[in-house]
Amino acid sequence: MNKEILELCGKLVPQAYVLQGAQARTSHENKIKHLIQHRKLPEEAWDDQTIELLLDELAVMDSNNFPGNCGVGERESRIASSLVARRHYRLGHGIGRSGDITAVQPKAAGSSILMKVTNSLVLDVIKLAGVHSVSSCFVVPMATGMSLVLCMLTMKLNRPKARYVLWPRIDQKSCFKSMVTAGLEPVVIENVLEGDELRTDMAAIKNKITELGAENIVCIMSTTSCFTPRVPDRLEEIAAVCKEHDIPHLINNAYGLQSTKCTHLIQQAARLGRVDAFVQSLDKNFMVPVGGSIIAGFDTKFVEQIGKAYPGRASSTPTLDVFITLLSLGAKGYRQLLEERKQMFSYMATALSQCAAKYGERLLVTKNNPISLGITLSLLDDPKGEKATEIGSMLFTRFVSGTRVIAPSEVSQVSGFSFKNFGAHSDNYPTAYLTAAATVGMTKSDVDIFIQRLEKVLSKFKEQATDSELEKNLKQ
Amino acid sequence: MNKEILELCGKLVPQAYVLQGAQARTSHENKIKHLIQHRKLPEEAWDDQTIELLLDELAVMDSNNFPGNCGVGERESRIASSLVARRHYRLGHGIGRSGDITAVQPKAAGSSILMKVTNSLVLDVIKLAGVHSVSSCFVVPMATGMSLVLCMLTMKLNRPKARYVLWPRIDQKSCFKSMVTAGLEPVVIENVLEGDELRTDMAAIKNKITELGAENIVCIMSTTSCFTPRVPDRLEEIAAVCKEHDIPHLINNAYGLQSTKCTHLIQQAARLGRVDAFVQSLDKNFMVPVGGSIIAGFDTKFVEQIGKAYPGRASSTPTLDVFITLLSLGAKGYRQLLEERKQMFSYMATALSQCAAKYGERLLVTKNNPISLGITLSLLDDPKGEKATEIGSMLFTRFVSGTRVIAPSEVSQVSGFSFKNFGAHSDNYPTAYLTAAATVGMTKSDVDIFIQRLEKVLSKFKEQATDSELEKNLKQ
Amino acid sequence: MNKEILELCGKLVPQAYVLQGAQARTSHENKIKHLIQHRKLPEEAWDDQTIELLLDELAVMDSNNFPGNCGVGERESRIASSLVARRHYRLGHGIGRSGDITAVQPKAAGSSILMKVTNSLVLDVIKLAGVHSVSSCFVVPMATGMSLVLCMLTMKLNRPKARYVLWPRIDQKSCFKSMVTAGLEPVVIENVLEGDELRTDMAAIKNKITELGAENIVCIMSTTSCFTPRVPDRLEEIAAVCKEHDIPHLINNAYGLQSTKCTHLIQQAARLGRVDAFVQSLDKNFMVPVGGSIIAGFDTKFVEQIGKAYPGRASSTPTLDVFITLLSLGAKGYRQLLEERKQMFSYMATALSQCAAKYGERLLVTKNNPISLGITLSLLDDPKGEKATEIGSMLFTRFVSGTRVIAPSEVSQVSGFSFKNFGAHSDNYPTAYLTAAATVGMTKSDVDIFIQRLEKVLSKFKEQATDSELEKNLKQ
Amino acid sequence: MNKEILELCGKLVPQAYVLQGAQARTSHENKIKHLIQHRKLPEEAWDDQTIELLLDELAVMDSNNFPGNCGVGERESRIASSLVARRHYRLGHGIGRSGDITAVQPKAAGSSILMKVTNSLVLDVIKLAGVHSVSSCFVVPMATGMSLVLCMLTMKLNRPKARYVLWPRIDQKSCFKSMVTAGLEPVVIENVLEGDELRTDMAAIKNKITELGAENIVCIMSTTSCFTPRVPDRLEEIAAVCKEHDIPHLINNAYGLQSTKCTHLIQQAARLGRVDAFVQSLDKNFMVPVGGSIIAGFDTKFVEQIGKAYPGRASSTPTLDVFITLLSLGAKGYRQLLEERKQMFSYMATALSQCAAKYGERLLVTKNNPISLGITLSLLDDPKGEKATEIGSMLFTRFVSGTRVIAPSEVSQVSGFSFKNFGAHSDNYPTAYLTAAATVGMTKSDVDIFIQRLEKVLSKFKEQATDSELEKNLKQ
Repeated sequence: MNKEILELCGKLVPQAYVLQGAQARTSHENKIKHLIQHRKLPEEAWDDQTIELLLDELAVMDSNNFPGNCGVGERESRIASSLVARRHYRLGHGIGRSGDITAVQPKAAGSSILMKVTNSLVLDVIKLAGVHSVSSCFVVPMATGMSLVLCMLTMKLNRPKARYVLWPRIDQKSCFKSMVTAGLEPVVIENVLEGDELRTDMAAIKNKITELGAENIVCIMSTTSCFTPRVPDRLEEIAAVCKEHDIPHLINNAYGLQSTKCTHLIQQAARLGRVDAFVQSLDKNFMVPVGGSIIAGFDTKFVEQIGKAYPGRASSTPTLDVFITLLSLGAKGYRQLLEERKQMFSYMATALSQCAAKYGERLLVTKNNPISLGITLSLLDDPKGEKATEIGSMLFTRFVSGTRVIAPSEVSQVSGFSFKNFGAHSDNYPTAYLTAAATVGMTKSDVDIFIQRLEKVLSKFKEQATDSELEKNLKQ
Repeated sequence: MNKEILELCGKLVPQAYVLQGAQARTSHENKIKHLIQHRKLPEEAWDDQTIELLLDELAVMDSNNFPGNCGVGERESRIASSLVARRHYRLGHGIGRSGDITAVQPKAAGSSILMKVTNSLVLDVIKLAGVHSVSSCFVVPMATGMSLVLCMLTMKLNRPKARYVLWPRIDQKSCFKSMVTAGLEPVVIENVLEGDELRTDMAAIKNKITELGAENIVCIMSTTSCFTPRVPDRLEEIAAVCKEHDIPHLINNAYGLQSTKCTHLIQQAARLGRVDAFVQSLDKNFMVPVGGSIIAGFDTKFVEQIGKAYPGRASSTPTLDVFITLLSLGAKGYRQLLEERKQMFSYMATALSQCAAKYGERLLVTKNNPISLGITLSLLDDPKGEKATEIGSMLFTRFVSGTRVIAPSEVSQVSGFSFKNFGAHSDNYPTAYLTAAATVGMTKSDVDIFIQRLEKVLSKFKEQATDSELEKNLKQ
Repeated sequence: MNKEILELCGKLVPQAYVLQGAQARTSHENKIKHLIQHRKLPEEAWDDQTIELLLDELAVMDSNNFPGNCGVGERESRIASSLVARRHYRLGHGIGRSGDITAVQPKAAGSSILMKVTNSLVLDVIKLAGVHSVSSCFVVPMATGMSLVLCMLTMKLNRPKARYVLWPRIDQKSCFKSMVTAGLEPVVIENVLEGDELRTDMAAIKNKITELGAENIVCIMSTTSCFTPRVPDRLEEIAAVCKEHDIPHLINNAYGLQSTKCTHLIQQAARLGRVDAFVQSLDKNFMVPVGGSIIAGFDTKFVEQIGKAYPGRASSTPTLDVFITLLSLGAKGYRQLLEERKQMFSYMATALSQCAAKYGERLLVTKNNPISLGITLSLLDDPKGEKATEIGSMLFTRFVSGTRVIAPSEVSQVSGFSFKNFGAHSDNYPTAYLTAAATVGMTKSDVDIFIQRLEKVLSKFKEQATDSELEKNLKQ
Repeated sequence: MNKEILELCGKLVPQAYVLQGAQARTSHENKIKHLIQHRKLPEEAWDDQTIELLLDELAVMDSNNFPGNCGVGERESRIASSLVARRHYRLGHGIGRSGDITAVQPKAAGSSILMKVTNSLVLDVIKLAGVHSVSSCFVVPMATGMSLVLCMLTMKLNRPKARYVLWPRIDQKSCFKSMVTAGLEPVVIENVLEGDELRTDMAAIKNKITELGAENIVCIMSTTSCFTPRVPDRLEEIAAVCKEHDIPHLINNAYGLQSTKCTHLIQQAARLGRVDAFVQSLDKNFMVPVGGSIIAGFDTKFVEQIGKAYPGRASSTPTLDVFITLLSLGAKGYRQLLEERKQMFSYMATALSQCAAKYGERLLVTKNNPISLGITLSLLDDPKGEKATEIGSMLFTRFVSGTRVIAPSEVSQVSGFSFKNFGAHSDNYPTAYLTAAATVGMTKSDVDIFIQRLEKVLSKFKEQATDSELEKNLKQ
């Protein structure tokens, strides 16, 4: 509705009403203007109407929607199904160009603006989440693992002779596989047990560097978010070592953006040592469908180099999803989500602890893990962990998803490498246990139902602990 | 609406009407049943209603939609924005598992079925398109270039010592970049000029193999679809050489699935020689938004190995888009699209030829290129191709997208390598030219408008050719 | 995207791309401007994108969508469910005010513009359809019958002492009921049989006027579209009589807008005599869901009076549906629909005639009915028409909807009045018969399948007619 | 997904996952089953997914969606635009048949079930809202005024000789117009002033009955919800009089369903006297778009008679909107809305009172009006109320919608009748005033912003009241 049209409207309905409507329109436009200008996450959430108005405007700017456009290339973003067109808001060109995933497409001004603004919003949110000195980032339509591959391939381009990746053990397949797929050689650094916690063995890292030679190491890949009793790596110390030995440092921050503890570690590591890039999942941190991640770093040039290493255009879906989601939350909404998560973590810790005590078990003491909690499963006559494993299955069939039960297991093969007790982050953890995580979006009702169902399942396996045991456990 | 509910409905409206409704429902269900059972592209198109019914049913089977589910994991597919949930049909878990992009997810039966069925449909379509003996394929949410990276990384895993990729020159950046990003060393095989066509230099390939040693070559990467005057590689001969020397063969079939000439080449190559994998773009062949590709091959084990090399889950969006699109076309509809494309190619060839003749130019004779057409741009006083290039810009601002103008240019750098005349597939092509492509979805009106606008632009640069020239040109 | 925002966009992507996008936007805006300015159905269809852009703009102008609006009235158009808001494009205020269904609402400039423009578009289409001198019309969210009630109540206001409605019999319940519900007294004028056709008995009408007194008659309600063998009323003659005796004339043109024969009759009637209003269904003429109709006339004042008689606001859904539909068809598309309908009518006439002949029946010769066709059903031993009726049921269960079988029946009660052979438009029609109609949107495949299934059903009842019968019938 | 399909799915993904998905599906089906069986508003809200699953299932049962259906009638519910089809969930047949708006359509089992279930849900909600002994009701796609017309026309059918409607004055146009449009003669009963309140003059009613003769009166039309200082009519006494004199009693309960005070009045009136029907708006009571109302009563036969008086099919949009809305609220959600409204009413009363006092005005004491509140506007030198009126306009341009300012005015004409001071419900109300209403969906923020803006506006007109005035006012 430009000025001319509004004037014509004034012939159909009184000009005063049209003006008021136009004023309302301006108020949407002001939000849009502010966003394009500052590219920061607005404090207040946008309503769906404003979000969709903007998306519609952007779609209009893409060549596949130009009235009268005639396309004679091999890639004209024609969309055959109207269902598909609709679900993409008629944006079809994806993001990036063959030369650079963050490049602007001449045929797709709208999609390009969407990409640019989203990358800026995400940068703003990373700062808001605690990594204040992050300098650059981009959304990439690949999950965390494949994004780690891309980071390592880029690092390898800069260090063509290096081939090792030092990797403090974290038993999560895609992370391990990322090194193998990148054609590199993983060097496993086993964790050390401190109390209940499994922590980074700094001495082993330093020894390995000496053993292999810093120049032969592509990077050290450290981890923040992980299943308890493993806790986030000693990032500051690793970063310091990396700086000292001029070794790149890649951080797998999969779902760590939602925890200020994790982001604080990254921030400190970058301040005191070396961090080349940190990668986080979109779905786990922002409640969007699986499929995208954010590659971020403190050196804009290097982050750009990663973007340039991605060959070809890419799906704009993760970009679009996170764009919509961030605007519909606003900074206020996202902060509140983070705050609620923290509360749920405490609430679940207490609830799990009481529940465990009731059945003669106890909460693992893993203060350094801000997201994942575990309780022991010391079942009678369960040397191979079969009973413990059954508890996990029973919970799953009772519609509890996401718990993990770890019990002693055989040696298993992961991408051609042998691991003892894979899943436990350690060859020998003293006890079987069950973990649960408090992540963004979890509600009090989730916790309550989980505890209820867990109690039902545990009670099938165990007599209730005696009162004295109960007291003893609660005191711990 | 199960039987019980239908009976209850019979108390609200006469049972006879309910029965007829139930019969209609059965007819949708029969389509769905047939699809799940045979996993072949139905001959007849499905209407949007049946497609959405099935998608809704699949969504119901994913844990994030279970009524009463309680999620205590780190990845529960909660979706914050209802706009986002809606555009994904409430499917949030993506596809694959950390171990394998084609693996089934326990938490997401619906998404897993979607992935399995789509991969089968796509396999069926590849056969329909002409690669009859393809044995296995999967959709991957990465564009062609990144998929080529993944293929080469997997090949490299099997040939750890090899490091070269033999690459008959095709001037398309993401394809070249894919080798570099994979950490491999591109060995450029310059094309030979035959008439107007640029064709594979088989002798050079053989020489290079001898020179480098077959065991040091990760693969030969050949190309089908390309901008004229380059034509598809001599696939059969390359495949034969690969077989003879036990070298993997990777085909970049970016938008070749839509041309029976390209698919025939692949089919023949696999029959007579060796083809390990061929990769094609989803958007260019199926009219869906940018973002996905298909990795296919003739050896199921090797294709599976590629799938397993992808670390982590992935976006289901390209899978969903192609699923919807294929069902909404049906085999009949897709065949018709291919047929129409062929007709548009002929139609455009004639129109371009006449238009060129009118202005003293001529159509390049490139019979082996089934998709892309070119006309010479022999402008006066244009040694650096500046005028020619301006023609491209003028077309773009006149809302013609997709033409490419190639004129003599300087040496340019692509991913650290130097190319003379990048874009021309050749250091020295005798003339400047303009290309246009006839791809699926192009309409007669696209061609007509293109020719109109091209004429207007050309007429600004050139006096109309004299009648005698016209006749001469038309005879060619 | 106002100018300011576009300039800001130019800092994110090159200004040239932004300009091209802005140019595309202007092209949408030009369509919108042209529509608002001229309020005529555009010749070319609009794409869905332009339609939705306009609807979104209109929604922004309604107060329920004003950012920061605070509503303290009893009717603020708050919408509780986002599903509902979405399906109404966030338009919630309906149309009209308590004083007038065509009045502009201060709180809802957008909805008001939608209403005004739609009424203009519809007026344009009525002219396009053949009623060239129509002067005024409005869409009302009530089906034809209730709209007839509103027309008659308004007529009654102007003729408080009158109480009769002269009604050439048309056996369709809602039309009869409309007179009764309006509190008026229907005076049935039986039809006369001419050949196979049932036609208006002009003499009877004139006699009744004399008998009752013109001043006691609220109006004559005539009919255009109807089931064969009744044919449209002799509108010109009725109009002439109305003019002569100063009696209002109301035409029930339910689905007649799609037939130039019907619209020509109305046009002629208005030219030569008196027509006060004619009413047509939206769903039947424009392929939208049931629920609205158009009240039109040749005297703007009187049409306005009807609009003012509607007490209160009303649903904007039929307005919105017809607005979207007309724009998505364009004048060209609507004319084509009408043309195709005409062809389908001829096609079905031929097919029905041949099918009937095959089974010893014949097509009714009803040349004055341009939409509905009938074949005789002269079954053996079927005095009460039970067999004939069964044919209708059998077709229905075979998924043929819309046929009607008329066989001799008992006296039935309609709104307290007795009718012999209700459904036949006549106390004594010589034969049982089956009707089918060719209406907008019908396809060749509809006709073919209908004939196939009809043949199957007929063949169950009848031996095929002998060849001689066949010849005889075909000659008729 | 029937059993057979689920088994086939078990060949694609492990049967255990399929079973869990099937179990989730059953849980949706159980909700649907419960709804169809009991047709009561579920206590808990449904999520959008379940609602849309059900709507999709219903659509499948309508003939326009039958695969292979062939339509040869004049009304086959073909839908031309996919935008339109989608926004109606592909339901096109509307509700009712020519004989009865609550009748089941053979061609549309799905739409018919929707209509039946919705009418039952709405009946349940009316009871929940306080009219416990209501026996029957139906949703009609006409606003309150036109529904009142239909009720009166039906009453008139039963009392053909009667022509008066006794109407305690309520200055709302569509309500007055409904009598005139129905062809009846309104007999205005002026209100009496009691304190600040305008109340029903029972004596005047009784006198009029004697004067006109009960048998000549079509009905008494009373009102519940209204703008203060008028308060709901003395329903019990009117009902008693109606019962005594055998006069039908029609209640205009426009937005009264949201107030237990209004519903209690209706319930008591029906218990102690006579109530034939009461009519309420859908949009005002249920936060759906304008366009529908509910006609309800205590005598099922009479309510059915009204339904049968509606000639023809009707739009299913209001039915669909209220169906979606009620399910998405649940009984719990609707009760909570009502509760919150009550709180907002108190909150606004206090806030208005304080604001008024600050400017030397006072809250009108109208305890019997549970929805609308008023403050005096005793401006200096404002004999014609021009200043007062300006206050209303200023609020409107400051995005406060819904206030009404009533000041002394001239005689105005409504549907041909003369009213003094129309809008004030009285020829002579002692003061000018401004009203605001607390209706469902209003938020605390609405009230706060309203008061803020009101203060700003008032402060432009008035010096702040002195402290002593303030105290005096607050004491009242």
